[in-house]
Amino acid sequence: MPRHSVRDVIVETALGEFHRTGFAACSVDTITRAAGVPKGSFYNHFKSKEDLAVEVVAKYTAEAEWNDVTDPTLTPLERLRAQFRVMGDVLVGNGYTRGCMIGNMGEELADHSEPMREQVRASLGGWAAGIADTLRAARADGEISTDADPDLLGRFILDAWEGALLRSKVVKNDQPVDDFFAMVFGQLLRRG
Amino acid sequence: MPRHSVRDVIVETALGEFHRTGFAACSVDTITRAAGVPKGSFYNHFKSKEDLAVEVVAKYTAEAEWNDVTDPTLTPLERLRAQFRVMGDVLVGNGYTRGCMIGNMGEELADHSEPMREQVRASLGGWAAGIADTLRAARADGEISTDADPDLLGRFILDAWEGALLRSKVVKNDQPVDDFFAMVFGQLLRRG
Repeated sequence: MPRHSVRDVIVETALGEFHRTGFAACSVDTITRAAGVPKGSFYNHFKSKEDLAVEVVAKYTAEAEWNDVTDPTLTPLERLRAQFRVMGDVLVGNGYTRGCMIGNMGEELADHSEPMREQVRASLGGWAAGIADTLRAARADGEISTDADPDLLGRFILDAWEGALLRSKVVKNDQPVDDFFAMVFGQLLRRG
Repeated sequence: MPRHSVRDVIVETALGEFHRTGFAACSVDTITRAAGVPKGSFYNHFKSKEDLAVEVVAKYTAEAEWNDVTDPTLTPLERLRAQFRVMGDVLVGNGYTRGCMIGNMGEELADHSEPMREQVRASLGGWAAGIADTLRAARADGEISTDADPDLLGRFILDAWEGALLRSKVVKNDQPVDDFFAMVFGQLLRRG
């Protein structure tokens, strides 16, 4: 597939539009117009707006800035903190708008689209499993001393993060992310 | 204002419809049709769908089952646990659909409606402040020993709850709520 094909342009444009406005508020017409492609070309590439949105969430998950934290000198706990920090920086860069597209799409569509529910389940599940792996490494290194199950803790930390991002969109300031760091890294994961 | 006025019926119907489908996916036409009132009557009572939705979130907040836990024999910590339990039971009763309407509306509209952002901010803020008051009472009674600031802890616990409800909609089972109880009541608030 050539770069910048019509298909790529539609996916890239839809990623921005869905993140900015949500699924229901964004029409195929809006997306094709913003992408500068004929509306008729849309259905050559996607069965439906839902089909496109599922692909967009998979792309958003795979390309998350979270995955860019690869400094090998960081300890597991330092890496986890840096990963949440970089996601928080994205939020600040967006002026506390948009939040997490995985959470947004889950909130809006989990009850109405089985393919989207499955994609969001996979995105959140993979993310939580990655956190759990890091927590296991941190515990093996003696960086954390909590006796909580790492899988459970990973899921809980991700839930707390998604809730903090939601509140960030609402209060439009750093407080929810600051609260998250204080409680997760200052309390839950501090050495006992 | 008489009971069951056209206005009341619209608000009551809209509460169910917005909770079930979200804001953008639910039209004024859908609401008036479900309410069995003439579409033309809508604008006699509300300036806009947004205006109605803000009122609906205020009503949802004021009438939350959370406020029904008033057993005076409960200790502060027992009351807090019972309040989250009753909210979890509502979720199970809905078959893990819908989630929290405050969170849903915040996620969908915080970037697009200043009146809704303000209502969700007030709803979450009041709820977190109530949790903080209960935590202060629990600490005064020696039920919890955490050294975390009760206001910060109250906000964090509510964020974790909103994140758990989001994930419940996605995985359609008890795990997120069980994780919340295990971490909040089994770890964060356990006596040290």
